[in-house]
Amino acid sequence: MDESNAILLLSCPDRKGLVARLSNFIFQNNGNIVAADQYTSKRGEYFFMRMEWELNGFALSREEIPVVFAPLARQYDMKWTLHFTDYRPRMVIFVSRHLHCLHDLILRRHMGELNADIEAVISNHTDAKDLVEQFGIQFFHFPVTAENKRRQEERQLALLREMKVDLVVLARYMQIFTGDFIEHYVNRMINIHHSFLPAFSGSNPYQQAYDRGVKIIGATAHYTTEQLDDGPIISQDVVKISHRDTMTDIQTKSKDLERIVLARALRLHLEHKIIVYGAKTVVFE
Amino acid sequence: MDESNAILLLSCPDRKGLVARLSNFIFQNNGNIVAADQYTSKRGEYFFMRMEWELNGFALSREEIPVVFAPLARQYDMKWTLHFTDYRPRMVIFVSRHLHCLHDLILRRHMGELNADIEAVISNHTDAKDLVEQFGIQFFHFPVTAENKRRQEERQLALLREMKVDLVVLARYMQIFTGDFIEHYVNRMINIHHSFLPAFSGSNPYQQAYDRGVKIIGATAHYTTEQLDDGPIISQDVVKISHRDTMTDIQTKSKDLERIVLARALRLHLEHKIIVYGAKTVVFE
Amino acid sequence: MDESNAILLLSCPDRKGLVARLSNFIFQNNGNIVAADQYTSKRGEYFFMRMEWELNGFALSREEIPVVFAPLARQYDMKWTLHFTDYRPRMVIFVSRHLHCLHDLILRRHMGELNADIEAVISNHTDAKDLVEQFGIQFFHFPVTAENKRRQEERQLALLREMKVDLVVLARYMQIFTGDFIEHYVNRMINIHHSFLPAFSGSNPYQQAYDRGVKIIGATAHYTTEQLDDGPIISQDVVKISHRDTMTDIQTKSKDLERIVLARALRLHLEHKIIVYGAKTVVFE
Amino acid sequence: MDESNAILLLSCPDRKGLVARLSNFIFQNNGNIVAADQYTSKRGEYFFMRMEWELNGFALSREEIPVVFAPLARQYDMKWTLHFTDYRPRMVIFVSRHLHCLHDLILRRHMGELNADIEAVISNHTDAKDLVEQFGIQFFHFPVTAENKRRQEERQLALLREMKVDLVVLARYMQIFTGDFIEHYVNRMINIHHSFLPAFSGSNPYQQAYDRGVKIIGATAHYTTEQLDDGPIISQDVVKISHRDTMTDIQTKSKDLERIVLARALRLHLEHKIIVYGAKTVVFE
Repeated sequence: MDESNAILLLSCPDRKGLVARLSNFIFQNNGNIVAADQYTSKRGEYFFMRMEWELNGFALSREEIPVVFAPLARQYDMKWTLHFTDYRPRMVIFVSRHLHCLHDLILRRHMGELNADIEAVISNHTDAKDLVEQFGIQFFHFPVTAENKRRQEERQLALLREMKVDLVVLARYMQIFTGDFIEHYVNRMINIHHSFLPAFSGSNPYQQAYDRGVKIIGATAHYTTEQLDDGPIISQDVVKISHRDTMTDIQTKSKDLERIVLARALRLHLEHKIIVYGAKTVVFE
Repeated sequence: MDESNAILLLSCPDRKGLVARLSNFIFQNNGNIVAADQYTSKRGEYFFMRMEWELNGFALSREEIPVVFAPLARQYDMKWTLHFTDYRPRMVIFVSRHLHCLHDLILRRHMGELNADIEAVISNHTDAKDLVEQFGIQFFHFPVTAENKRRQEERQLALLREMKVDLVVLARYMQIFTGDFIEHYVNRMINIHHSFLPAFSGSNPYQQAYDRGVKIIGATAHYTTEQLDDGPIISQDVVKISHRDTMTDIQTKSKDLERIVLARALRLHLEHKIIVYGAKTVVFE
Repeated sequence: MDESNAILLLSCPDRKGLVARLSNFIFQNNGNIVAADQYTSKRGEYFFMRMEWELNGFALSREEIPVVFAPLARQYDMKWTLHFTDYRPRMVIFVSRHLHCLHDLILRRHMGELNADIEAVISNHTDAKDLVEQFGIQFFHFPVTAENKRRQEERQLALLREMKVDLVVLARYMQIFTGDFIEHYVNRMINIHHSFLPAFSGSNPYQQAYDRGVKIIGATAHYTTEQLDDGPIISQDVVKISHRDTMTDIQTKSKDLERIVLARALRLHLEHKIIVYGAKTVVFE
Repeated sequence: MDESNAILLLSCPDRKGLVARLSNFIFQNNGNIVAADQYTSKRGEYFFMRMEWELNGFALSREEIPVVFAPLARQYDMKWTLHFTDYRPRMVIFVSRHLHCLHDLILRRHMGELNADIEAVISNHTDAKDLVEQFGIQFFHFPVTAENKRRQEERQLALLREMKVDLVVLARYMQIFTGDFIEHYVNRMINIHHSFLPAFSGSNPYQQAYDRGVKIIGATAHYTTEQLDDGPIISQDVVKISHRDTMTDIQTKSKDLERIVLARALRLHLEHKIIVYGAKTVVFE
């Protein structure tokens, strides 16, 4: 007996009868819907849906589902992806020298909280090496200079391909990828930025926040696009600060925040609850 | 042309094909769904749905909808209510001597933010009289003593009936209603309690919070039941305090919170986004 | 018997023995300190203090305090201001067409929560007129065009002077003042901006937030400077939004936030808890 | 040159001239105050202060400070403690089977964020053993039954004494200590409770929160007293939940919260920013 569920994520121009067509597709194949979320944008007249149903008892096999669904999807001009809950996505984490987010993810994996496999950790430094290997995870060191940047990216890309990586996590990785690299992982590459975007994009947001005298700081997890710090936002959160907070205090508070926000974004992605729409996301929480 | 929408709120034991049946009901009558939210409880195998569709172009008249829908509802053992977005609910506000929530609601009405009519304000004191009448709202004074309590409730009830009141709001009303009174407004009577329930139920929660030395205080809006402070919670929020906050500071901070939390609960109720289920609520936000 | 307190706000380069000198000044004049807050900036070696003591029993009269304190202040190169808790500051509120903050302040005044007198409301529109006058407050209409802007500012300034105004509150006033105007109310002019500054400065921050797809929106109260939206921040707060929130929803949520944030900033200012230091504030909460 | 600071935490009945006396004590011994916080309770007329000054250049040695200060303290009936910033407190962590808080503390230590030494981890289970030892920390297994409870406590106490432990952290330890044990670590024993106390004290607060249908859950760090879940609260925080959150979701969200709240309480304690006063705390943040 198959205890897994299928998850369909789709978006298309809104039309009458869409929900009826989609729920009939499941019902007529004897499926039992366990969760369904939908949203119609008020402006663009665009429709978004996430449907999750039990594979147990469903009339179509995993292979047949996309084949049978495709004509319906075409008719409504849908963008769609299909997922199965028993598949463990394969992820790689990039990190530089600030290791708090990496540590957090490693511990979540250790506690069984992370619904994905960490295939490897890649860094332009070696600070993370010992801890990563101590937890039985492969570590790759790719030092990056202005000269070798392109070449290193190609080697990293080859490695990711070889590992059949589904998801790239930038857990405070201080290098900017080229558009060529990013296009291989569109909507599959999550970055944590240590500010409440769009405030304080670019480098050293802690310092920027300190200098501006804001009373609240934030962190933002987003999909990476070629436009730095401008990708679709998945999750944000904030914490209060005061004039008493030094740069070190701001950093300490922010690090806790970054860990939480990145972990939350990751969970939403791994549970297939995010649909990217233009520069924005629809998140079915 | 009818620019209003119909809203169906329903709950029933979960069964295969429910969403298909419901969306087909709308589709086959040429309806256009503008919003749909559903939820299946993981434990009780119970299904909840809120569907909103355009009356314009819908094949059934407002009067026909319940007639045609009833057999389907019976088949699935549904509890359901039907609403139309152009109907302005009629509400009455009860208040004692703390007037911040009352003031807030009067101003929201004045700004056109409140999607309901305030038919009257009822109080066991006269503090609110001048301001209420200044805004052209009827004010009724019902002094309450241990002796006349029952009699006053009957008179209040008669008044509410005469005014065809849909919703009773207890905006810091310091009298406890009898079960007889409450049963006329089950799930139609909203109370704001000035604590983060279930902490500090009963009287003087500010003092209780101060004495216990909590670092956060809260406010809770809930439907009133015979069990004091125990009704289904609609909305809660909190604000941080410190040892520096005196009783007056706690009160000032809490009052801002109470206004926000009550207004939010009211909006959710008036937009028909709440389904009560046992002692809890499903809120489609 | 004088039941009021004196409040001294001061800042100066940090030096050994400062606190001893200051507390001795109070003690030797038989004063009883009821609150004292201090802060030394880690970077600039700058010292900030707020001291509040009882006038009852104090050896110096209100007029003598500044005279006797001045030499000590000079010695340490202090910037300082002296306040008495029984003085009710005189404020004027500027507003355009969004009236939620104005309404909130009027109600706080009505409830006795506002420790200041509202001398008048000034607007470039007439929307607020009826409500303002209904509460017995003077209303002045100054329509502003590109041509008459300078002239109107002069007339407004004359009016403020005549009224001996201590504090100007911009409660969603959509006109930009000239530097000439602002310099008369340096650190005495509070603006509420409807975004989490520095994100979404300038016009229509609701739209900007909507378009960027942020998951949290904010509001910022700050002292007005010639540099638009760039003045020292007093208070900020945020509220979560999602893809489901339309522009109207964002506006509704933000309006509640703006009211709270402006009221909080105002309270801090009126309690003399803010010291401006360069582009930032020290807030003794 | 001594680069450390001295920290004095004190409380006493409020009297005129207290601040002057205390700041003179530092000044006359050529001390440079780097931070000072004070608070006078409005009710009990009680005074609290935290003073931090540089040892470099101070006229008294570490040993002389308490000797010279004692008469002044006696005169004002002070309770006081003296600390030096270069002393690393020695802590022991107790844990049962939920390891998220333990993991968090171990990683903070690994990242150099924890200003204390973890001498050992003690558990009534063995789940934590491997990870703890992997990080080079001693692990002790004390299985507890109704029969051996008293005996095990005595052995634990002997171990703590031998290790000269300053601080005991209960990072989700599911055993209740006897009063005999607790009295050895009054105000030196911090517990994390997985609810927003006083709501949901006792066992299984997740389940209690779920059953009550609250819309917000919390976590509370407090000093342990004989009265279970009733000790002075140090830190609290909350996170929103909805009807969609299953017991597992509540647990996941709460675990992130518990880690943050415990770490914050620990930092405040280790920075000597907490004074316990009756059943409450004064926290100089």
